[in-house]
Amino acid sequence: MNRRVTQRLLTAGMIGTLAMGAGLATAHAAGTSLQGAVDFRQSTMTILKWYLQPMGGMVKGKIPFDAATFSNKATGLAKAASLDLTEGFPKGSHEDTEAKPEIWEHWDEFVEKYKALQIEADKLQKVAATGDIDAIKAQFGATAKTCKSCHDDFREKDK
Amino acid sequence: MNRRVTQRLLTAGMIGTLAMGAGLATAHAAGTSLQGAVDFRQSTMTILKWYLQPMGGMVKGKIPFDAATFSNKATGLAKAASLDLTEGFPKGSHEDTEAKPEIWEHWDEFVEKYKALQIEADKLQKVAATGDIDAIKAQFGATAKTCKSCHDDFREKDK
Repeated sequence: MNRRVTQRLLTAGMIGTLAMGAGLATAHAAGTSLQGAVDFRQSTMTILKWYLQPMGGMVKGKIPFDAATFSNKATGLAKAASLDLTEGFPKGSHEDTEAKPEIWEHWDEFVEKYKALQIEADKLQKVAATGDIDAIKAQFGATAKTCKSCHDDFREKDK
Repeated sequence: MNRRVTQRLLTAGMIGTLAMGAGLATAHAAGTSLQGAVDFRQSTMTILKWYLQPMGGMVKGKIPFDAATFSNKATGLAKAASLDLTEGFPKGSHEDTEAKPEIWEHWDEFVEKYKALQIEADKLQKVAATGDIDAIKAQFGATAKTCKSCHDDFREKDK
């Protein structure tokens, strides 16, 4: 979670200009830019973290476990994870970011690893609604593991 | 859309420390911080923009209209708008941001205005799936209007 993010938002006009000149991947030619895609993916990560962090605090006993709050956060996580984060990784968008070039060399594997988060986050939402703390802890672990698995392969650690 | 955002992500440790000292609103005491809330809301805005911008470009004729792409973006917007953005506005979190203090003076109105976006974004998702370009344009207008309505009342213009 020690991710350095400098997020610059461009004005609509600047984005339009960049979109015309940047040689974008087809899926990203629709009025967006490489920087827009980086902003989208970093923002999505920030939101995933917003939901994951208090759940992690409860699972680790750093803050009191509250079933309703946990369930609320798990629902938010599942919704946020339902966004297609992979849209935020058009080719050429790794410069000055923590994204490794390996993402595009192993694209299918990268997409699968994101799908794994979606699947586990959906399960966590369901388990969280039961209030079964042991099952919740186990499923939170399974969910967090999908984050780590992708970061280990596809994210620079010290960039 | 000319929103200036400087986004700083804190390490988990820093967030823990801040959460203990910052006098947070009840809903935000669960291992998060005021800065975490600001990051969450600004990230959510960035994601809403990511989906709105290409739709706006198509509606305004700046980029070619593509029904499938539009529908995909409308689905993303509805999902992103389903996140509870109002969680990102704990009391005291307006400093150094574009959030006006009026948000907390008229909290119910603020929440209603966000609900209006959720409702119109859901409608847009449905209309976009029909491919009816005139209906799509009208509903995009209705959706964008909810953004403007809230920004007019609750966002500083030149901060």
